[in-house]
Amino acid sequence: MDVRTSRLRDDIEANAEFGAVPVEEGRGRTVLTGTTADRKAREYLVARLRDAGLDVRVDAVGNVAGRWTPDSADPDADPVAAGSHLDSVPEGGIFDGPLGVYAALEAVRAMRDADLDPARPVEVVSFTEEEGQRFDGGLVGSSVAAGDIPVEEALAFEDDGVTLAAALDDIGARGEGLLDASDWHAWFELHIEQAERLERAGVPAGVVTTITGISRCDVEIRGEANHAGSTGMDERCDPLAAASEFVLDVESAANDVVADESDTAVATVGKLDVRPNAPNVIADAVELTVDVRDVRHDSVHRIVDEARASLDRLEAERGVETSLDRPWDRAPVPMSERCRDALHEAGASAGIETLDLHSGAAHDTMHVANATDAALLFAPSEDGISHNPREWTDWEDCAAATRVLAGAMARLAAE
Amino acid sequence: MDVRTSRLRDDIEANAEFGAVPVEEGRGRTVLTGTTADRKAREYLVARLRDAGLDVRVDAVGNVAGRWTPDSADPDADPVAAGSHLDSVPEGGIFDGPLGVYAALEAVRAMRDADLDPARPVEVVSFTEEEGQRFDGGLVGSSVAAGDIPVEEALAFEDDGVTLAAALDDIGARGEGLLDASDWHAWFELHIEQAERLERAGVPAGVVTTITGISRCDVEIRGEANHAGSTGMDERCDPLAAASEFVLDVESAANDVVADESDTAVATVGKLDVRPNAPNVIADAVELTVDVRDVRHDSVHRIVDEARASLDRLEAERGVETSLDRPWDRAPVPMSERCRDALHEAGASAGIETLDLHSGAAHDTMHVANATDAALLFAPSEDGISHNPREWTDWEDCAAATRVLAGAMARLAAE
Repeated sequence: MDVRTSRLRDDIEANAEFGAVPVEEGRGRTVLTGTTADRKAREYLVARLRDAGLDVRVDAVGNVAGRWTPDSADPDADPVAAGSHLDSVPEGGIFDGPLGVYAALEAVRAMRDADLDPARPVEVVSFTEEEGQRFDGGLVGSSVAAGDIPVEEALAFEDDGVTLAAALDDIGARGEGLLDASDWHAWFELHIEQAERLERAGVPAGVVTTITGISRCDVEIRGEANHAGSTGMDERCDPLAAASEFVLDVESAANDVVADESDTAVATVGKLDVRPNAPNVIADAVELTVDVRDVRHDSVHRIVDEARASLDRLEAERGVETSLDRPWDRAPVPMSERCRDALHEAGASAGIETLDLHSGAAHDTMHVANATDAALLFAPSEDGISHNPREWTDWEDCAAATRVLAGAMARLAAE
Repeated sequence: MDVRTSRLRDDIEANAEFGAVPVEEGRGRTVLTGTTADRKAREYLVARLRDAGLDVRVDAVGNVAGRWTPDSADPDADPVAAGSHLDSVPEGGIFDGPLGVYAALEAVRAMRDADLDPARPVEVVSFTEEEGQRFDGGLVGSSVAAGDIPVEEALAFEDDGVTLAAALDDIGARGEGLLDASDWHAWFELHIEQAERLERAGVPAGVVTTITGISRCDVEIRGEANHAGSTGMDERCDPLAAASEFVLDVESAANDVVADESDTAVATVGKLDVRPNAPNVIADAVELTVDVRDVRHDSVHRIVDEARASLDRLEAERGVETSLDRPWDRAPVPMSERCRDALHEAGASAGIETLDLHSGAAHDTMHVANATDAALLFAPSEDGISHNPREWTDWEDCAAATRVLAGAMARLAAE
């Protein structure tokens, strides 16, 4: 099959213009659900799907799907589906998400160009709100398609008083009906690795064995706001000093788990807000999030337990009041052996080396795997950098991984 | 003289409505320079000054002054001036600032009611932007009145692209000419203590000996933004973890200075911003402020030196890049002995106990003292709480301190 680097690159570069942000180095974009950038990215995708001759539909949570039903296929057979997402974190990179969507489209174009005669339809999918920057914890579109959350619940998610339904309506992105992942014969997602294992190994395609488990904790630490000048050091109850100890305790807990039992464990405080956040006021309260991940669920629990113990200690030693909510805890998800085999075989057949590895990041495929056989394929990330304008994957690596994807899709569509 | 508690209270409570914020406990207000709340507070003050028969003027940086020129006075004699400010921190209390403005007005009303025949005019003053929440580091109006900064420089201060000039114009608060503190015979400011020394001593009026020196440092710590899930613990350069160590190092430095050489030293990180501040992104950079104060200037320098040493260590140990700017460093300011004596004498004469103490907080009087004889008088703060809706001073304590203020003003106006 003739996967064309330039055709894939043109689409990813065109998509990179939507929400583009000026940066000193690399290429940044901010594409939050329901924004103008999101609308433009969706409109371009729909146009490109139609250009390739696919039938496009948009479902009730804004998931976009383009279906190719070749003359050779039974139109009622379960399709082979592939895709990813188009939204980004603030000032994210141009590959995280779009590579998987446009690689799936390029795979379909390559299959058509090669005059393949698949027995099944093939579907290209872009899921809504993967990153969770505005609504819930992310993976929203795939959660609904997999039946993990009801559509009504998803549409009622709120960002600062705006529901997902209203945000989608704002940009004309709310359609009808629902994608149903359980109707898919198989699912593939190509994504950048966001780590350095493929780069170090010099391998352009990684086949994921397990997607990491993830817990999110929302922590609040409350002290007593007071004047920064006239409140003596021994009279303070400073929640930012307490939060600083907590951030370091979380870091230590993760390092201990890495040393003791699981070198894939990570924990991150990436969001921290001080109230009232004024230079001459001892803070009243600090809110922060803890993101904990590992392929071993027990290791995730251990780090969360140590975070709770840190808060107990800080209450006793610093007189602060604390709370820790754990709004979600997702178990690690193993990938389908059948789909993984198809990826390895496609790589071998195309002369492209593949490598087994785990995914430390959450992906829509976590949810799809609850509904059908699913697999996740990685392309290398330069220096492992992602969620950053310096995120980069060489175009030749994008194309090589897309060849593996296309081969696996073609294999399972022939069944 | 008949300082009336109810008249003073009515003014402070009326002023508390401007920028009032809903809070669970106490009374909060947010009055930032150039906002609607600021405009309303100014308009009410001007009306109350005029009700009391004072001639009102507003100068080029928005300082408001109401002058009483009794028939007994030489209209060209240098006036005795007193006042404070009406702006607040976000969600601040109702006494910090307004007490001093309305106590000065009540003092004039009491002097008039008592048919005193002062030899000098008396002026009630409200300074612009004391808190520094929008423009520069605060004390803006008094800095200009004292000749410490040129009016053009002050008017060009910017908040998010808006100049002070434009912010004042927005609310019709920019007048003409300038108050000149060097023309004042003497200056008094009554302010809440914002600490617990008066409350513990059971004394309603504190005479400040020295206003603390203050340094402000602006710190940036830069790491490397990356994916929170797929970046291993040993691959991270996390500026929020580094900033957490820094916050604790600053706290330790202040505690060491308190233990070693000066129990009045304090250091505070009250403002801290994470970029991009997303739960699943290792931060790119953290910006924070350090506020360091003491009556011993050497102790301030020592804490700032230790903050710099902490950043050097973090660069070496964590690979972050850091910067520390010190936009201002104000030496401690001793108060005028003549004015302090007048306050003690006024207290003794009215049967109100007074107490010597230092001020850990900056006040407009720091600048006025560069231009004329100046003194600062404190009223008790319940539990030492300020910059907080739970800030409170009993109305009887407000009145007692106002009696001391009025007595001192009358003494010096008689000269």
